[in-house]
Amino acid sequence: MILRGYSYSLDSNMDHKELKISDFDFLKSLDTRWRDMDAIQHINNATILSYFETVRVAFLNDLGFSVVRRQSKGVILASMKIDYFSQLSHPSAMKIGCRIVRIGTTSFDLCSAIFFNGFEKPVSAGTFTLVTFNYTKQKSIPITESIKDSFQPFKP
Amino acid sequence: MILRGYSYSLDSNMDHKELKISDFDFLKSLDTRWRDMDAIQHINNATILSYFETVRVAFLNDLGFSVVRRQSKGVILASMKIDYFSQLSHPSAMKIGCRIVRIGTTSFDLCSAIFFNGFEKPVSAGTFTLVTFNYTKQKSIPITESIKDSFQPFKP
Amino acid sequence: MILRGYSYSLDSNMDHKELKISDFDFLKSLDTRWRDMDAIQHINNATILSYFETVRVAFLNDLGFSVVRRQSKGVILASMKIDYFSQLSHPSAMKIGCRIVRIGTTSFDLCSAIFFNGFEKPVSAGTFTLVTFNYTKQKSIPITESIKDSFQPFKP
Amino acid sequence: MILRGYSYSLDSNMDHKELKISDFDFLKSLDTRWRDMDAIQHINNATILSYFETVRVAFLNDLGFSVVRRQSKGVILASMKIDYFSQLSHPSAMKIGCRIVRIGTTSFDLCSAIFFNGFEKPVSAGTFTLVTFNYTKQKSIPITESIKDSFQPFKP
Repeated sequence: MILRGYSYSLDSNMDHKELKISDFDFLKSLDTRWRDMDAIQHINNATILSYFETVRVAFLNDLGFSVVRRQSKGVILASMKIDYFSQLSHPSAMKIGCRIVRIGTTSFDLCSAIFFNGFEKPVSAGTFTLVTFNYTKQKSIPITESIKDSFQPFKP
Repeated sequence: MILRGYSYSLDSNMDHKELKISDFDFLKSLDTRWRDMDAIQHINNATILSYFETVRVAFLNDLGFSVVRRQSKGVILASMKIDYFSQLSHPSAMKIGCRIVRIGTTSFDLCSAIFFNGFEKPVSAGTFTLVTFNYTKQKSIPITESIKDSFQPFKP
Repeated sequence: MILRGYSYSLDSNMDHKELKISDFDFLKSLDTRWRDMDAIQHINNATILSYFETVRVAFLNDLGFSVVRRQSKGVILASMKIDYFSQLSHPSAMKIGCRIVRIGTTSFDLCSAIFFNGFEKPVSAGTFTLVTFNYTKQKSIPITESIKDSFQPFKP
Repeated sequence: MILRGYSYSLDSNMDHKELKISDFDFLKSLDTRWRDMDAIQHINNATILSYFETVRVAFLNDLGFSVVRRQSKGVILASMKIDYFSQLSHPSAMKIGCRIVRIGTTSFDLCSAIFFNGFEKPVSAGTFTLVTFNYTKQKSIPITESIKDSFQPFKP
């Protein structure tokens, strides 16, 4: 079931619902669990954020960011815009992509989308504004070279 | 710890970080649980969405919407924009407000914000685009009079 | 609704820590998620129950039990005894087995164990006392032939 | 890390379903959340363990145990036996009690029960075998005086 026409515009020059699996170089597989469903018997909206998170953690780990312990080089989520295009139910298998679409001085935007296996259109997509952050000192830090190197804007 | 300067603009004519507890007529109390914290030892971003959800469900229930069983009059989440201004840890007590800030034909925007007890500024706030939805027929339905009656735009 | 008379006796004649992956004909793979870790930075004890649950649901589905909607033929958990032998962290891949080790008139015991890929000894194991249950009528029902056919006691 | 030798014997001389709210000196209030329900539209069995956990953490904190950061004095869950007597749905308010019912050299049993507000009989109860544990050294440690002082067996 596809919910159309309820998206709102995005500063990243890319409409979430136009995202394709081929827009992402970094992709990970993920399977639903029974408990991911809520009392409406579909996958809960907050649970989908845990899907995004698991893949984002792996992506950021490859860029040298610790997301497990309070270390000098971390990130903190400041803001996000999420669109839900389809309902999911358990059991489902999916692929989730990550891509850095904006870089600032101490923050960057990571775009992420969830694709059912075998489909080109996303079931959900989000843009996450992450602040590079030192959890020990509890303050923001400059973005790293690894982030700059991974920057792939949709329309440069 | 307050994260400032990472908000982005909102179509609702209201910056999330300017929200005050007095902006909300509908408010519910909520307590954290230990498991709400993640491996970074603060309240997880997706868990905060379950806080919003619990209060939104109560708010919508008062407007005549079932959010437990698949009935004729429900809502489905199409989109959301969330800002995180402060980190939370367990144990914390908070109040969460809900307010309908936009109405359309078959959808509306619900603004929600979380306030630590005793503070005026929000720790997190979000705007949720909800589609009025018949889960049995799996299609959108017109918004109800109860939603129109509750419409309180920030700048009418 | 009170479930009486199903109180626990671990008469399965099997010590959980002696379980081997070869004790299970029914096995499913499962991957951890980042959010499965708690503030102690290991996989949370309650989350491990969701692992067991996802595999149990698949096992029971094969036996003709619905565990999604309130239908005539369901099960309800009355009791469980869980042992934790090792700490887990994310990311980990595992296999989880299910086996019916006791049958009664309107209840049965399902033994389940989690194995790290490549290891013979379980990281956690549990015995779940499940009551065959009609959720519409909210009362227990006799166990089915499918359950009797799957009965595999450890020491017959 | 393997926890050996803590396998279960419910030698607490107390049947879980006979527990009364007056059996507990330590009691905390807790409210359900909408997301605590699962696809069967009742409170999920694993979520109930998070209820127990939140109250157990508060109880252990009063005894000088840190359950947030990896410090020298912690506990680790080795085993548990849980009984579910009634189904819960959202919204519900409850009280949860904790009581140390067995002490060993490096472990103890904590009995915990959940009571609906206004009811004497538990909706769920569990006995948790906890090992006193140094997370930095990853080894068990002797139980503390604070635990010995809190020891309240059901039948001394």
